[in-house]
Amino acid sequence: MNSIFTRRSVRSFLPKEVEAEKIEKLLQAAMQAPSAMNQQPWEFIVVRGAENLEKLSHFHVYATSMVGADFAIIVLCNNERLKSPLAWQQDLGAATQNLLVEATELGLGTVWFGTAPHQPRMDYVREFCDLPEHMVPYSVIAGGYPKDPDANHFKNRFDPSRVRYITE
Amino acid sequence: MNSIFTRRSVRSFLPKEVEAEKIEKLLQAAMQAPSAMNQQPWEFIVVRGAENLEKLSHFHVYATSMVGADFAIIVLCNNERLKSPLAWQQDLGAATQNLLVEATELGLGTVWFGTAPHQPRMDYVREFCDLPEHMVPYSVIAGGYPKDPDANHFKNRFDPSRVRYITE
Repeated sequence: MNSIFTRRSVRSFLPKEVEAEKIEKLLQAAMQAPSAMNQQPWEFIVVRGAENLEKLSHFHVYATSMVGADFAIIVLCNNERLKSPLAWQQDLGAATQNLLVEATELGLGTVWFGTAPHQPRMDYVREFCDLPEHMVPYSVIAGGYPKDPDANHFKNRFDPSRVRYITE
Repeated sequence: MNSIFTRRSVRSFLPKEVEAEKIEKLLQAAMQAPSAMNQQPWEFIVVRGAENLEKLSHFHVYATSMVGADFAIIVLCNNERLKSPLAWQQDLGAATQNLLVEATELGLGTVWFGTAPHQPRMDYVREFCDLPEHMVPYSVIAGGYPKDPDANHFKNRFDPSRVRYITE
């Protein structure tokens, strides 16, 4: 079964460093996402080090599980790249999801912390990273090797009542 | 190489029917996406039949490639399911991306037509499907077996200049 089906939100991690090649592979996967008018508005900041992660974790009331993660990746929109401005949240949603699925593929666990459009969270991340005005924090992902080796597993969410067919 | 890396926008299709089991697998993949507060706001309409697809194709000026596709899937937000209303575009972006990657996995080609928040496109889809007020069209995907067997292929989009590291 492929990783789309086994990805879960993972919040407990081993104290084991994720290889730099794997981090880069996650970023590669994110950048393969489709985007409106192929605008590819994304930029990424990789945060590592226990002190940095502890400080960043305060951006979101439910992000305490970032303490103990091996890395965080902040997904940003570069407003100067926008050709189809209304689509930025969709583009970055696709990029973020690619990153999460690829992490599962590589044996990693991740959790997606919603950031935009909640202004206090965005402001905290902006200050943490010292971002210029045209860079907008969209999502923050924490990750690492999962403590539970079965953390990513299939849980069936299929609900046929959500589907309608138009065939005639 | 996994399908995240080989997925491309595909706009030319064989006149070959996609099996119902594959369509269902696409919907299963979409419903495995994460969502804010696990709200799973998605609903789906599968459109088949040449006449239906031709009629639907007029919702978007660049959707002529829907004529000749085997199916379209309309991804909708059910507003009555929203617990975290601001996150709906992110949730449905992740669900749409899962669907596209899974299609690649199954040997299918797809193209994502941006729909929300463009009001004329949303209005056309609403009327086409006779949607109740609380159902909001988000994206429309056309798909089928690709005419070019190499339609999905790896094109490297990795740009290291988009990545910054905070480690100290």
